Amino acid sequence: MQVAAYATQGATEPLKPFEITRRNLQPDDVLIDITHCGICHSDIHAARNEWGRSRYPFVPGHEIVGRVREIGPKVTKHKVGDLVGVGCLVDACLKCPACHDGDEQYCEKGSVGTYGGTEPVIGGPTFGGYSKQIVVRDEFVLKISEKLDPAAAAPLLCAGITSWSPLKHWGVKKGDKVGVIGLGGLGHMGIKFAVAMGADVVMITTSPEKGEDARRLGVKDVLVSTDRAQMKSHLGSFNFLLNTVPVKHDLNPYLGLLARNGTMVIVGAIEPLEPMHGGLLLANRRRVAGSGIGGIAETQEMLDFCAEHGIVCDIEMINMKDVNPAYDRVVKGEVKYRFVIDMATL
Amino acid sequence: MQVAAYATQGATEPLKPFEITRRNLQPDDVLIDITHCGICHSDIHAARNEWGRSRYPFVPGHEIVGRVREIGPKVTKHKVGDLVGVGCLVDACLKCPACHDGDEQYCEKGSVGTYGGTEPVIGGPTFGGYSKQIVVRDEFVLKISEKLDPAAAAPLLCAGITSWSPLKHWGVKKGDKVGVIGLGGLGHMGIKFAVAMGADVVMITTSPEKGEDARRLGVKDVLVSTDRAQMKSHLGSFNFLLNTVPVKHDLNPYLGLLARNGTMVIVGAIEPLEPMHGGLLLANRRRVAGSGIGGIAETQEMLDFCAEHGIVCDIEMINMKDVNPAYDRVVKGEVKYRFVIDMATL
Repeated sequence: MQVAAYATQGATEPLKPFEITRRNLQPDDVLIDITHCGICHSDIHAARNEWGRSRYPFVPGHEIVGRVREIGPKVTKHKVGDLVGVGCLVDACLKCPACHDGDEQYCEKGSVGTYGGTEPVIGGPTFGGYSKQIVVRDEFVLKISEKLDPAAAAPLLCAGITSWSPLKHWGVKKGDKVGVIGLGGLGHMGIKFAVAMGADVVMITTSPEKGEDARRLGVKDVLVSTDRAQMKSHLGSFNFLLNTVPVKHDLNPYLGLLARNGTMVIVGAIEPLEPMHGGLLLANRRRVAGSGIGGIAETQEMLDFCAEHGIVCDIEMINMKDVNPAYDRVVKGEVKYRFVIDMATL
Repeated sequence: MQVAAYATQGATEPLKPFEITRRNLQPDDVLIDITHCGICHSDIHAARNEWGRSRYPFVPGHEIVGRVREIGPKVTKHKVGDLVGVGCLVDACLKCPACHDGDEQYCEKGSVGTYGGTEPVIGGPTFGGYSKQIVVRDEFVLKISEKLDPAAAAPLLCAGITSWSPLKHWGVKKGDKVGVIGLGGLGHMGIKFAVAMGADVVMITTSPEKGEDARRLGVKDVLVSTDRAQMKSHLGSFNFLLNTVPVKHDLNPYLGLLARNGTMVIVGAIEPLEPMHGGLLLANRRRVAGSGIGGIAETQEMLDFCAEHGIVCDIEMINMKDVNPAYDRVVKGEVKYRFVIDMATL
């Protein structure tokens, strides 16, 4: 089937209207009319081939919300008219130990990314959510509560789950002292989740001016990481740090903040980091871990938690044609905290 | 009380006979006639002030075995004649949350090291086990089974517990694939413990010639980390890696070996490490942690496990007067795998 989309034809090309071919509805497929799609920083990295593995034409978007238009005969999870979401994954083997454990993102056969993956039915690259419609395997479609604003729910599908998954995986609980490093798309969701889980949340930032907004999001304290006295006063006190810094940086000052058995989870920086000091790890038996997006069941759990707690992302809606300048603003950190494309404008 | 010991008077001085003053027996103290003391690489770092915080005269030694000669009136754990051990700690507050959890090594008030700490009763530096006798608070004295060779049991008090603690803390169990990186004092104990726990143990080394000895210790396979094809064949397969490399090194090749949710624990290198690649952490949700020695209860647990499984260290006995050349051999890695001083020769 032919579907309208916005695509880029190369690393230095702007995004513009483009007709894409999606697979026809398979027996276990769901056809979704996309109403909203968030803009993730990964979209930009991939569109601009900053990770060196992009294929063109390239259609970004993995924070997708829409309504089910049609279902295949074997679809059991969703029905026509449902409000649904699609995140970073559209397929996986569902048979390996990782899939069995609900870690489809770590599927041992390789999961299929929503964009830039290999389309399992018709071949070629998978195309993301900057598009009127998408066809996705039943199991990879999430239910979204009608209680949630569909536009503001869209970024839950990546920014949300990426910050939710490590908080849950590492058992963050009521009364824990949790630091969220960096206040962007992921960071602001990390704050909302950790606050809702009952943790005592501290925003850790190099930008004191972000403090006011962080307090609005529910943090108990703001720690300016360039202020040595402030950092010293929090030494060895955090049970958990969610590190959303998206670029190479020095982990050592943050390591020193961790209490005994404390964990810092890196969700943003995927390049080589500054040298880490082994002694800081040995002291207090600290841990540094990575975490990438999340599995399907935990994404559903997160969406249900959001419906229960009235949590969505703070967003700025844009029209499809404004995506290119929006990209530049994301790169400059000029969005609070996520752009969402109104797909009616495509 | 005056006690015979071997001490160094400065970073570049050899060790030689020296009379030290120890506190007199306090009500909850145990006076131990030391029969054996292991040589830990830390002894050398500290004697030579390579960590920049040594005080002189300096008496090394925190792998101490001996017999109880006398006890104070409030001592409850030990009696005269018992075979006992003393490790890296001789005191802690025993009241803080860390002590409460059996993590005296992370005591929030600061634990007292067996050497180079601050003597809590008479002041000055604590003196280690290269000595005829030591006076230690009841709670910090460990029981050693008469089933164990006391000489070969001595290094259990540091090399043993340092490799045991992370294996237990991270729940290594039967059937896990465990890699031990580096075959020295810690590594050879890590292999013995992990094998006894039922893990499938692989020795990871840059020195293929160490393979034969590793197989004798019970490993199922030897992985030469400089062999790219071998490394590739083990990618993403380890549940746990015990990294005993004692110097700055590149973690990234080892990170790639970790399976989903796999953990690498660093017990040796306390300096800045080579830059770690964030993407390798995110992939497979890997973890890197540190671990330093162990608490008193888990040290006792380890010693009891050793008695049950007939585990001791592989040692080379030396006379006290040969300690200086032994140090040079340790630095060159020329010992399998621990020197132990026969204290009868002091």
